[in-house]
Amino acid sequence: MKLGELDTPALILDRGRLMANLTRMSARAKHHGVDLRPHMKTAKSADVARLATAGHSGGITVSTVKEAEYFAAHGFSDITYAVGIAPDKLVRIAALQAAGARVCVLSDCSEVAREIGVRARALDACFDVLIEIDTGDGRAGLAPESETLIALGRILDDAPGTRLRGVLTHAGQSYGCRDVDAIRTVAETERAGAVRAAERLREAGFPCPVVSVGSTPTAVHARTLEGVSEIRPGVYTLNDVFQAQIGACDLADIAVSVLATVTGCQRARGEVIIDAGGLALSKDRSTAAGPHDVGYGLVVDAACGDSLPELHVARVSQEHGVVAAPRGQMPFEALRPGTRVRVLPNHACFTAAAYDAYHVVDGTAGAPDQVIGVWPRVNGW
Amino acid sequence: MKLGELDTPALILDRGRLMANLTRMSARAKHHGVDLRPHMKTAKSADVARLATAGHSGGITVSTVKEAEYFAAHGFSDITYAVGIAPDKLVRIAALQAAGARVCVLSDCSEVAREIGVRARALDACFDVLIEIDTGDGRAGLAPESETLIALGRILDDAPGTRLRGVLTHAGQSYGCRDVDAIRTVAETERAGAVRAAERLREAGFPCPVVSVGSTPTAVHARTLEGVSEIRPGVYTLNDVFQAQIGACDLADIAVSVLATVTGCQRARGEVIIDAGGLALSKDRSTAAGPHDVGYGLVVDAACGDSLPELHVARVSQEHGVVAAPRGQMPFEALRPGTRVRVLPNHACFTAAAYDAYHVVDGTAGAPDQVIGVWPRVNGW
Repeated sequence: MKLGELDTPALILDRGRLMANLTRMSARAKHHGVDLRPHMKTAKSADVARLATAGHSGGITVSTVKEAEYFAAHGFSDITYAVGIAPDKLVRIAALQAAGARVCVLSDCSEVAREIGVRARALDACFDVLIEIDTGDGRAGLAPESETLIALGRILDDAPGTRLRGVLTHAGQSYGCRDVDAIRTVAETERAGAVRAAERLREAGFPCPVVSVGSTPTAVHARTLEGVSEIRPGVYTLNDVFQAQIGACDLADIAVSVLATVTGCQRARGEVIIDAGGLALSKDRSTAAGPHDVGYGLVVDAACGDSLPELHVARVSQEHGVVAAPRGQMPFEALRPGTRVRVLPNHACFTAAAYDAYHVVDGTAGAPDQVIGVWPRVNGW
Repeated sequence: MKLGELDTPALILDRGRLMANLTRMSARAKHHGVDLRPHMKTAKSADVARLATAGHSGGITVSTVKEAEYFAAHGFSDITYAVGIAPDKLVRIAALQAAGARVCVLSDCSEVAREIGVRARALDACFDVLIEIDTGDGRAGLAPESETLIALGRILDDAPGTRLRGVLTHAGQSYGCRDVDAIRTVAETERAGAVRAAERLREAGFPCPVVSVGSTPTAVHARTLEGVSEIRPGVYTLNDVFQAQIGACDLADIAVSVLATVTGCQRARGEVIIDAGGLALSKDRSTAAGPHDVGYGLVVDAACGDSLPELHVARVSQEHGVVAAPRGQMPFEALRPGTRVRVLPNHACFTAAAYDAYHVVDGTAGAPDQVIGVWPRVNGW
């Protein structure tokens, strides 16, 4: 099947770009002597996970229990569920463990930690637990110097149904950086905070083999990962316009795009309409806070070249995307109704989540418009 | 099954509220003497469509070909696909028609209109077509006084494979209104523009039986629909916080919500974390431009009362929602880890799209926490 035969909107994955992204991150992990535990919340695909874990321990990170179930069913048996656990979810985690997977859960809360122990007894299970550390993201997690850290370590180490595995942090504030130096500073804050928390737990007599850090920007630009055991980047697999803008990748590294069709034009306003709207692209507006706002995505030609520079999806409604051009210079002749374009997403994790599968092409191969595979995704919870 | 047994996040539909919403809109259509062709882009559910069309012609509106296919498979045979048609999609439309459905398509473009005729011959089909009119939304459509309107009517009327059915408009600018009077003004602009376009087509000798208008705010508040044949509101089925803010419904009319679980708290910041983030709630930020910004949704208790007023999801990442309270007065004791809450969405169409099904309850019945059904949704394209 050719790209031109696909119904639009459709989610396109460029295998050549994907492989280059995976190879680069794998090399970075090896350079730093840490394990790569890729976060599959972005790609949500067993095909991608197999490629992304090649040459590493095989461990992965997930953001939902449904991802954990999907990846376990596809042979991944070392899974970190890196979102604070709601105790009611432990029933499904226990079922995965009974089927042979090892699923590590996360908390920053003494009350939850105790409840994990209670549920473990009720379920006749034992849960591996990481303590979440906040190294500046301001979302969840304990500060590295928090008094609660030691108390939490003790609860997890004492209870027969819980096993303290270590600490985990996500320096999400790296998404607020606007240049590589700023990312490097955040990366060092992330590393140092996680290592310090681990040291405090060890000094208090608790085991702490895992020191897990990760975000794509910090994984790409960290100068050192001394004391870290693993990194968990995710969006690097696909990349997106926002990551390119903050310096975590180049535009040419974006492996995912939405194939769309022009349905009409508004010549007086200098706009064309495409059939990829707010559902097909997501309403993520990451680049609104970036150096260059591209609305809901950057529009390129269907071969995913760069021949339509600076066209972007300026507005969306549910199934309409309104494409605008810089200074109103819309190339109407190149965008007649029926023409196909691709939209590079603001935020790959959100755009991809609207689709059940990737249509895979390889822009680096001889037939860039040939669909060489359909790779399913796991959405939902 | 009880609400408390559901995995979170989950999409909850209150049947009592839904029925009240449907009954009100049905009465409005009858009051105005117009047909109700509900837009199923919001609910995307055959169960809802059956209830919403009761007492009317049975016609529905859809926003994707996949919706058309799904609803046709569930017995709906009079379908308007109210997004400008990309000619490549006509293969699937023709297949639906061959199976017995009547699917009316839409365009505002002479080039597309001619191509519909070409495809009709190639597919041995005949397509009903509506001309899209722009009555102030500034998205797609021709102005009511546009010269192209008559030319387009002629193309559609002349070709053997196309049948001009009339005009369709969507006054999406009603979403920019902030009070009922403003909505009434938009409703009249919408009505008058559609009627004027239809008159011009008829004066030029073309048939124009369909004069289709619609948006929830204008359908709710229009003073007259003189000359209109049908209305196509959609979000009124579920309603949302944004519709309540602009006066198209009350907060108590919101029939859809996301059930979520508290996973932790950040006492120093006065925040709790829930397991409904940007994917579970969508990144729609409609209320950012409304009279009262509720972030990514309004948080209420699990029984969907109003006992947690003004709590809202202030920030999201992919699977985290950060709940903030007015003046930092977070009721931590009511929101201990493991507690369930519901989030009323900014924009029902976008939030619901993340889920494959509704878990149905009935808050007006004796057992409001009883799940009385699971109603599938159709997502994707």
